[in-house]
Amino acid sequence: MSAAQAEDLRPLRVALLGCGTVGTAVATVLSTRSTLYAERVGRPLEICGIAVKDLHAPRDLDPALLDLLTTDATALVERADLVVEVMGGFEPAHTLIRRALERGTPVVSANKQLIAAAGPGLEETARAHGASLDYEAAVAAAVPVLRVVRESLAGDRISSITGIVNGSTNYVLDMVARHGLGFADAVARAGELGYLESDPTEDLEGLDAAAKIVILARTAWGVDVSLDDVHREGIAHLSDADFQAAAGCGQVIKLLASAWASGDPDRPRVELAVRPVALGSEDPLAQVREGRNAVVIEAESAGVVSLFGAGAGGPETASAVVGDVVNAACRLTQ
Amino acid sequence: MSAAQAEDLRPLRVALLGCGTVGTAVATVLSTRSTLYAERVGRPLEICGIAVKDLHAPRDLDPALLDLLTTDATALVERADLVVEVMGGFEPAHTLIRRALERGTPVVSANKQLIAAAGPGLEETARAHGASLDYEAAVAAAVPVLRVVRESLAGDRISSITGIVNGSTNYVLDMVARHGLGFADAVARAGELGYLESDPTEDLEGLDAAAKIVILARTAWGVDVSLDDVHREGIAHLSDADFQAAAGCGQVIKLLASAWASGDPDRPRVELAVRPVALGSEDPLAQVREGRNAVVIEAESAGVVSLFGAGAGGPETASAVVGDVVNAACRLTQ
Repeated sequence: MSAAQAEDLRPLRVALLGCGTVGTAVATVLSTRSTLYAERVGRPLEICGIAVKDLHAPRDLDPALLDLLTTDATALVERADLVVEVMGGFEPAHTLIRRALERGTPVVSANKQLIAAAGPGLEETARAHGASLDYEAAVAAAVPVLRVVRESLAGDRISSITGIVNGSTNYVLDMVARHGLGFADAVARAGELGYLESDPTEDLEGLDAAAKIVILARTAWGVDVSLDDVHREGIAHLSDADFQAAAGCGQVIKLLASAWASGDPDRPRVELAVRPVALGSEDPLAQVREGRNAVVIEAESAGVVSLFGAGAGGPETASAVVGDVVNAACRLTQ
Repeated sequence: MSAAQAEDLRPLRVALLGCGTVGTAVATVLSTRSTLYAERVGRPLEICGIAVKDLHAPRDLDPALLDLLTTDATALVERADLVVEVMGGFEPAHTLIRRALERGTPVVSANKQLIAAAGPGLEETARAHGASLDYEAAVAAAVPVLRVVRESLAGDRISSITGIVNGSTNYVLDMVARHGLGFADAVARAGELGYLESDPTEDLEGLDAAAKIVILARTAWGVDVSLDDVHREGIAHLSDADFQAAAGCGQVIKLLASAWASGDPDRPRVELAVRPVALGSEDPLAQVREGRNAVVIEAESAGVVSLFGAGAGGPETASAVVGDVVNAACRLTQ
């Protein structure tokens, strides 16, 4: 075997940054589905390390994976062929991703707040260094909406995107609408079940949904928009009377994130909003239950394309993360 | 400007094979959205010819596009950077696509029967010559299911795919279920509206849906399956009594195409079926109206992912075709 052939068969080293719910699920599928990925990519994918804050925190990981834990994320990034960031938060995620991209290393991230806040700068770094940056899991987890917007509709003109992209608030709203819980009780229950972020205002005030519609709008129209551009109204101020009024008209209140284009189709003006909307019960978005997500895209030629799926959860989010990993790995081995 | 730079800005020559409903829509969007595509691809896309059988047939095309009509498809393929086949049928489409791929020219096709019958051989030719062959429009038109199965779920294990992938029969079934038409009247009306293929047995006997589920199964599992592997039952033999019985139980009859995997997850056994199924009216597939299509994918990690959209129509199918064209053109210019 020549040196070049040996290089072709060397495993691709995947650095995992973060090992919470999503990181644990990513590590688990990367190890249990290694045969599948080796076949799809043409080279094995091998986790070369898992960066964590606390080596000794209890973890539901295979013992072989526990041996890969490290607190030195910077060194880990430097020995990786591909970096997966599932730690969340702004720093150190931002610096680590930038460092990887500057080395030409492809990055996959599930970090919606980071991508919403710093995505365009990171994309620029990626382009400058010939690296890729993918983040399908950052918007609506297992709903494959970014790829559909970017690739499937690459030949079309999108006119609007409307979706339920925050599973926690949808869970709360669904408990009120379908199970008759009071709003405060539904919020409490979502908190107990771990549906809400540690700071529930992220969800309840629509900040999480705003981050996702910003990312969607950039992907759909290539526009320079930020969280400040989102007309944002959460659900925290809603009262039981609001829900009763909606139910009395056969309507269901949902927290919708939306973006729509107007003006010159080649240089559209794009507006963004997150707000509670009362929908007729026949509306497909009215029927989205519990923590599920849905996105409805309208395009000039395609008409209405609707996508439904899991908007949260470790394995569900990992599906999107590892989808990006396999595609990035295929590009590396081409 | 250097010769290399001039080459970088030269338009990509797109050969269009066929100018029926879909071809006309493809030609129209390629010319009216030229600014958009030039920006997305980095080079203009320019139709270098449109191959047709009859130069003098009446056509709803811009006069500038009429000048591009030719009957010499073979010569057209030889001067193209990218070939779009929307002529349908087996020959001459098969020979023309093979010839393009052998020259290393990427091909985009919307031809479901051809891809179902000869896809694996053409993929092999594409690989051998470093060309790409894409056919998103061949399955469920504007529903972006092939890309989702192949790319979004590249990190997952798909367990089943179930869908309404034939718009004509869904139109017939919807007219019976929601508008109370007799089955024979609904078939006649679908025929008058141009919903049925010229040979309606393609639709009514489930052959069209069978071709699509074969393509989906190959894409999902990489298995070598053909039309002969599909347990196929159409809707032609259904009677008004069948529809009345279903309605009496609150059910709706839909023609479902399905594929499911069992056994070793790394080497699954895959079964395929097309058959009418009575669904509870709450089932998302029961709610698919008129000529729309829907596909529900179940995967080990992602859970259930559902996609809904237009399953037919010139502009809708063109959206998928030109999506493939723009992606292939981006790869050419990288």
